[in-house]
Amino acid sequence: MAQEGYAAANGIGCLQDGKPPDETDNANYFCEYAFLYHQMDMLEDEHRTGSYFNAIAWNPDSFKDKVVLDVGAGSGILSIFAAKAGAKEVFAVEATDMAVRSRKIIQAQGLSHIIKVVQGTVETVTLPYMVDVIISEWMGYFLLRESMLDSVLIARDRFLKPGGALFPSHATLFLAPVGSAKACREKQQTFDGERQHFDDFNDAMTNYYGSDFSCMRGEFLEEQRKYYLQTGMFVNLTPKQLASGGSPLLEIDLLRITVEDLKDVEKPLTCSMRISKDTQLEGFTGYFNVMFRGSPQNPTKEVIELTTAPTAGTATHWGQQLFGFFPPLQAKSGDVLECRLRIKRQKKNHRLLQLEAAFTLGSEGNVREKREDTWYVD
Amino acid sequence: MAQEGYAAANGIGCLQDGKPPDETDNANYFCEYAFLYHQMDMLEDEHRTGSYFNAIAWNPDSFKDKVVLDVGAGSGILSIFAAKAGAKEVFAVEATDMAVRSRKIIQAQGLSHIIKVVQGTVETVTLPYMVDVIISEWMGYFLLRESMLDSVLIARDRFLKPGGALFPSHATLFLAPVGSAKACREKQQTFDGERQHFDDFNDAMTNYYGSDFSCMRGEFLEEQRKYYLQTGMFVNLTPKQLASGGSPLLEIDLLRITVEDLKDVEKPLTCSMRISKDTQLEGFTGYFNVMFRGSPQNPTKEVIELTTAPTAGTATHWGQQLFGFFPPLQAKSGDVLECRLRIKRQKKNHRLLQLEAAFTLGSEGNVREKREDTWYVD
Repeated sequence: MAQEGYAAANGIGCLQDGKPPDETDNANYFCEYAFLYHQMDMLEDEHRTGSYFNAIAWNPDSFKDKVVLDVGAGSGILSIFAAKAGAKEVFAVEATDMAVRSRKIIQAQGLSHIIKVVQGTVETVTLPYMVDVIISEWMGYFLLRESMLDSVLIARDRFLKPGGALFPSHATLFLAPVGSAKACREKQQTFDGERQHFDDFNDAMTNYYGSDFSCMRGEFLEEQRKYYLQTGMFVNLTPKQLASGGSPLLEIDLLRITVEDLKDVEKPLTCSMRISKDTQLEGFTGYFNVMFRGSPQNPTKEVIELTTAPTAGTATHWGQQLFGFFPPLQAKSGDVLECRLRIKRQKKNHRLLQLEAAFTLGSEGNVREKREDTWYVD
Repeated sequence: MAQEGYAAANGIGCLQDGKPPDETDNANYFCEYAFLYHQMDMLEDEHRTGSYFNAIAWNPDSFKDKVVLDVGAGSGILSIFAAKAGAKEVFAVEATDMAVRSRKIIQAQGLSHIIKVVQGTVETVTLPYMVDVIISEWMGYFLLRESMLDSVLIARDRFLKPGGALFPSHATLFLAPVGSAKACREKQQTFDGERQHFDDFNDAMTNYYGSDFSCMRGEFLEEQRKYYLQTGMFVNLTPKQLASGGSPLLEIDLLRITVEDLKDVEKPLTCSMRISKDTQLEGFTGYFNVMFRGSPQNPTKEVIELTTAPTAGTATHWGQQLFGFFPPLQAKSGDVLECRLRIKRQKKNHRLLQLEAAFTLGSEGNVREKREDTWYVD
């Protein structure tokens, strides 16, 4: 009896669809995933889909006769990979109406006897038993945008057997200093133009309508500064644009981290970047990798890495996030750029991020430049 | 007592802020209006702001010593115009945090003793007494997108004195056939490319991942057709692109129309357009005007018109909405294009529109072409 009570409280019972997302969260976030063009955008990211394919298909021992849960299954592609790798049963949990389409796709592969599509948020579905493996593609810009990792961790706590594995198992968020970035210079120019724009606007309002808006100048420029200078840009950088290699800022073991750890980390993260050439630093970039190592009890034989690092080759649909230094910092080869950074969630939309960062630049014991600001991942 | 009860039930009492918008409606709609850049975009639309200015400033008799309500006041500009035209008291109702800024703007004009900013939706605020005039800029694309007219009518029913005036007082939605429109041809080409896109996608999914997505081809093309061919485009047409003048499809007397009238008009609207030249019709366009006539008891001396019709001069920020015929219709000079059209609200977002339209083209008694489809104003 006690065990049944425990199971029911933790979402184990008859297989049952869950609830749809909260209406506002749906408008802000989930609705986009109900479009096929968006699913195709992700499926066509060769490094993304290929890395998951390899991580699953090249490690059949991790899937053979296993029960698998796919969190945020979308088109169902990861469930299909798992079924083809020998999984006994796969629960493909998807909150949007894409669930209806994934059922058709799964049927077309002749896999409906293995994969059960469950519609609803993973927080609210009920599964018949615990699972051996959780697979999920939950990563957003700057790794954590979208806050979907929360749902994976909740699924882990509700449904993963002791000793079970998460695919991916590890994630790392990297920072790197950026030497030259035209995108930053363009943002600065556009922002500079907004000063004149406001003055022209105010002249017109005053001359034509006798209404003086100059009291809004400060707030307008603050709004524009936030939009143009404090918001991360989607970019595809190449390695030559970096002023050093990437330094890990945050390393996540998906088996161990808690949802609480993820929320507004009170203890700032730190990282240290050694500058490799004399250059100005026009900004810094954030990108990530995830690793498929299985679990300590069941490690994968082939360790696959999915990385969104700047590359001269094929870019991923995540690109990198670029944040500008305005004005640029002046760096010398051998300098160290130290960063202390807090990743907070935005108050108005918890799926977006707010970075509070402080940088120092200099050689050992001699800090030449300091920069403190807030940047947004929108 | 009875009267007090009536007044309280209808929002008359101590001046009181109202409730913020529903959270989802805020995410979908209101939040945009809290940005200064967006307010400035609207203020910088010279025909828009100038028409309101003229309608108010050139008709001081309509405002002198009057009590005025501004619905969705935004920056407060219309309230300022009304105060400068001699209004005794103005209630500027604004649901977003732009209310806080409008207070500063109004103070900077030295008008805080006349204009009271009330934060909240107009459906939920309480005013101390009924008003003589309601001013509002509520028009969206295709006149009715945003569904903000609902709020103006609710404000009218709650707060406008018998004999009071609405600024604007009348609105007309026009349709016109469009001869040549590059935008339509480009959409057709993009859509045509999506067929090949899907086939390439499916080849890759089949070859690399052994997963056949061909069962989604129909649904994908339907999704893309909706996006590229059935969604209204924002355009700035010039008169030479039209194949006839505009025909009124819907005429609104803001004193008389009800919210119920506006919702999914069961009786289709009709209009008839006489083609003025031999041409193909690549689409049709929707645009509107509003008139400032005051009320029957207090007509304006200067009747001002704000129009978004195609023009060779300054365009408004509304542009026109263009809907394509795919493939184009073949029209001859003297032909008549008849249209029956229902304007519905979209189920997933009541502020967006869905047009169910049937067209016939031909000379009298001889219909050569028929076209029936659904178009969206997103």
